[in-house]
Amino acid sequence: MPSFTQLKSVQRLNELAEDPYDLTKEDALSSKRIDSMIKESSGLKLFYATERVSDMTLAALYDLAEESGALEKMADMQAGKVINCIEGYESENRAVLHTAMRDFFGSAESSPEAKEAASLAYKELEKLTAFLKDIEGKDLYTDMVQVGIGGSDLGPRAIYLALKAFQKPGRRAHFFSNVDPDDGADVMKDLDLSKTLFVIVSKSGTTLETLTNEELVRTRLKKAGLDPKDHLIAVTGKGSPMDDPAKYLAAFYIWDYIGGRYSVTSMVGGVVLAFALGMDRLLDFLRGASCMDKAALRRDNNLPLLSALLSVWNRNFLHMPTQAVIPYSQALSRFPAHLQQLNMESNGKRIDKLGKPVNFETGATYWGEPGTNGQHSFFQMIHQGTTIVPVEFIGFVKSQYKQDVEFRGTSCQDKLLSNLFAQSLSLATGQKSSNPNKVFMGNRPSRILLAERLDPYTLGMILSYYEHAAAFQGFLWNINSFDQEGVQLGKVLAGQFIELFALKKQKKIPDVKTFPLGQAYFRHIEPHLE
Amino acid sequence: MPSFTQLKSVQRLNELAEDPYDLTKEDALSSKRIDSMIKESSGLKLFYATERVSDMTLAALYDLAEESGALEKMADMQAGKVINCIEGYESENRAVLHTAMRDFFGSAESSPEAKEAASLAYKELEKLTAFLKDIEGKDLYTDMVQVGIGGSDLGPRAIYLALKAFQKPGRRAHFFSNVDPDDGADVMKDLDLSKTLFVIVSKSGTTLETLTNEELVRTRLKKAGLDPKDHLIAVTGKGSPMDDPAKYLAAFYIWDYIGGRYSVTSMVGGVVLAFALGMDRLLDFLRGASCMDKAALRRDNNLPLLSALLSVWNRNFLHMPTQAVIPYSQALSRFPAHLQQLNMESNGKRIDKLGKPVNFETGATYWGEPGTNGQHSFFQMIHQGTTIVPVEFIGFVKSQYKQDVEFRGTSCQDKLLSNLFAQSLSLATGQKSSNPNKVFMGNRPSRILLAERLDPYTLGMILSYYEHAAAFQGFLWNINSFDQEGVQLGKVLAGQFIELFALKKQKKIPDVKTFPLGQAYFRHIEPHLE
Repeated sequence: MPSFTQLKSVQRLNELAEDPYDLTKEDALSSKRIDSMIKESSGLKLFYATERVSDMTLAALYDLAEESGALEKMADMQAGKVINCIEGYESENRAVLHTAMRDFFGSAESSPEAKEAASLAYKELEKLTAFLKDIEGKDLYTDMVQVGIGGSDLGPRAIYLALKAFQKPGRRAHFFSNVDPDDGADVMKDLDLSKTLFVIVSKSGTTLETLTNEELVRTRLKKAGLDPKDHLIAVTGKGSPMDDPAKYLAAFYIWDYIGGRYSVTSMVGGVVLAFALGMDRLLDFLRGASCMDKAALRRDNNLPLLSALLSVWNRNFLHMPTQAVIPYSQALSRFPAHLQQLNMESNGKRIDKLGKPVNFETGATYWGEPGTNGQHSFFQMIHQGTTIVPVEFIGFVKSQYKQDVEFRGTSCQDKLLSNLFAQSLSLATGQKSSNPNKVFMGNRPSRILLAERLDPYTLGMILSYYEHAAAFQGFLWNINSFDQEGVQLGKVLAGQFIELFALKKQKKIPDVKTFPLGQAYFRHIEPHLE
Repeated sequence: MPSFTQLKSVQRLNELAEDPYDLTKEDALSSKRIDSMIKESSGLKLFYATERVSDMTLAALYDLAEESGALEKMADMQAGKVINCIEGYESENRAVLHTAMRDFFGSAESSPEAKEAASLAYKELEKLTAFLKDIEGKDLYTDMVQVGIGGSDLGPRAIYLALKAFQKPGRRAHFFSNVDPDDGADVMKDLDLSKTLFVIVSKSGTTLETLTNEELVRTRLKKAGLDPKDHLIAVTGKGSPMDDPAKYLAAFYIWDYIGGRYSVTSMVGGVVLAFALGMDRLLDFLRGASCMDKAALRRDNNLPLLSALLSVWNRNFLHMPTQAVIPYSQALSRFPAHLQQLNMESNGKRIDKLGKPVNFETGATYWGEPGTNGQHSFFQMIHQGTTIVPVEFIGFVKSQYKQDVEFRGTSCQDKLLSNLFAQSLSLATGQKSSNPNKVFMGNRPSRILLAERLDPYTLGMILSYYEHAAAFQGFLWNINSFDQEGVQLGKVLAGQFIELFALKKQKKIPDVKTFPLGQAYFRHIEPHLE
């Protein structure tokens, strides 16, 4: 298979990029263009008239999808083929089956591997239903604290915050993750530990931060005269060091074909979301995700594929180094942090699936904060800075709480949506002026993902949309979006520093030759140690 | 004055950038280098051995500071000269005097303008002290909600969260900002409004989001049978529409020489921080900031100047489009969002101070999340992605709560610091391997800002360090870091959309010619409107 830069469509796209669609020209942005550049899937709409693409660009982008076999690769992924691998080299060599975690809603066409994974996942869901019914009956617990890090934290936290408006009365969820002892101390200081469940999440059962924080929790529980076993739940791989009925009230399983950043719809997110929102809401959320999974397999109205193609256009042909995501929804305040992991950990790679260093740019720096807030912050740079930042806006027509006021003739929600559309338009069209400081160059691309209301089903669709948009980018580039070798070196060196601290505590003097750089840093902190 | 690219030092730096210091070579990173590349100011240390600079680079960077008159410009700023302007064009034409907001601690050398500003600020501080003493005596209020947006939200929120460990017993602070009605609804739903004060913050008294949210608050208070006047405080400019004693329990002033993103140490942050943490803590915080202000004027051990020079080296000579800031401290979880505004709104500019379009890159995309969390998220891309991301780490030797546990021979805090140092080292040195997926290219620059403990005084120093690092970058580039014209166009277009919504509510049909693009969007949301 030819590499990305050798594809015919890529050569064609390079030509087209010499003169990309000019959004600042008169009538470049017409009502007709806006109408024709909307794609919809089950109520979720993608507006992309404000991207720098013409019909020719779009045709070439879909040729790229064809040439790189993007749809076939998506089908392979959902069928459970071993796609998390680097050919010819030692690698994780696994299937990638997060879609099976929510494939319970009437699919007959899956492969045996995917069916098996879905049936295992469903069994955990049944265990969870029974567990929650049991504790509900006893009315023992009001609060749940999720203790995990990375994918075991960012996704579940973002989704919980997004759906807090749908919370079960009397139930609350909390999260801590950092090995920083102040993280756990801050979260636990206002909790009634006797009514609190802790969900300890680590697939391998060996994550340093999570095990350390579990120790913090156990210490606090014992100090409060409580038995840790009544308050701890494990979410882990079967047979991991954490899979130990003597130590936990319950254990729920995940599998090696579920990557951390793709684990929200597995038990990693499932336990805390079902506890806080109720099982019905969790099921709605999974149903929405599954609906988008099916859409990602289709040729038509495939929103995540289109999103990936537009991202690749901006990244590889218009040479934009970052991608911003700006939800006009305060409930989605932590969703960009989840998408940051999803995209940067998946696609921040320097070799392709054959192990060859790539000669093109892969995953962009992915970042964002909610609007309208961002307008009063970093939007100055997005409008008038020297580096162009493509933006994906997320918006909703209706609010969640429906506690709105009219002020000067319109509601808050009206104003929120107005600002979203206005930003997209002004980035595209720009503005001329005789005062150079009032000049806006325009031609700054954006797109808008719009839905009626942020509810569990819709959020499931949106989550799956982003998961597949990330995966499709990897498929287009022919890189492996499912491993994370880049985190290993830091772990090894951290171990060497930890060893220095341990020696220090034992009043031993480390051999100066073993880790001289470590000791160089150490000399400057030692006088301040507690 | 020659423009940036015409400076001799810039030409020299361009030559040096052809072969920047190679951190991956054997012994490139020695104990000696680490020791010699630490600058310290009142206990705050900047480690920069892991930047790609040699002694020659540093010499040329300090020549750049000299040639661009960076220190003189800093002195002008702190003296209250009119530096927020574009020569020859209509502009804000103002002084920039946030340093005067904390210049009460024994300075005799200030200019008359700065002294006047400091004395006005001190008067507000005295008013605040009296106000807080009064309400403390009556024991009426337990909670304070700050309602502002942009600089009236991000900075105060970040600082409050950072210092929550020092909170006064029985006091809590909350924040909402977004015109999204769900933001206020979520914050207010668990509050006892009868015991809550709301601080409405808008310098102009005309910020749409804030006025709308004030209306939301007034409506809720009235519904609860309370008199809004007993619960609302204004922080605004003298004579603004919000400066109205009939409507607020108290008003505290800010001035036009305080930019939103530089307003944390004015009453914008002062009221909520003094309420929640106590006046002594606020004063410690201001004292720390003032200490760093003085250091920013000096030739030696000027940490913010060094930081700005290193950032310009990475941005303009090594061509890195983003800057990450990673605090190894969960308490600083929202500090990167404040720095994002501070840097991107200040330096995301396309013209210089003479109104000429720049022919070099200005402010980078600035982003970050706390570590160790980031290591389990986007660090994959930072280690192995195709675009290099320079990182500034922030770390502390001691924890805030001092509720730590030993696990496998070391404390959480030991592990936290170990990870910070390990990341910085591994980014610099990289790793060779026969497995291409385990190759780390190295030469990825970072620096570390290290202090003993995150307390009010230290945080004041750190805040001022970042404020001045942003300002120094602007001084080096000769751009205006203190205006934000780039936010205007979006406001105008948002007004047009809001007009459409208002017409719709009045069941009027807008003329299709007035805003056809607006109506094009509108058609697609109208069927879903509530």
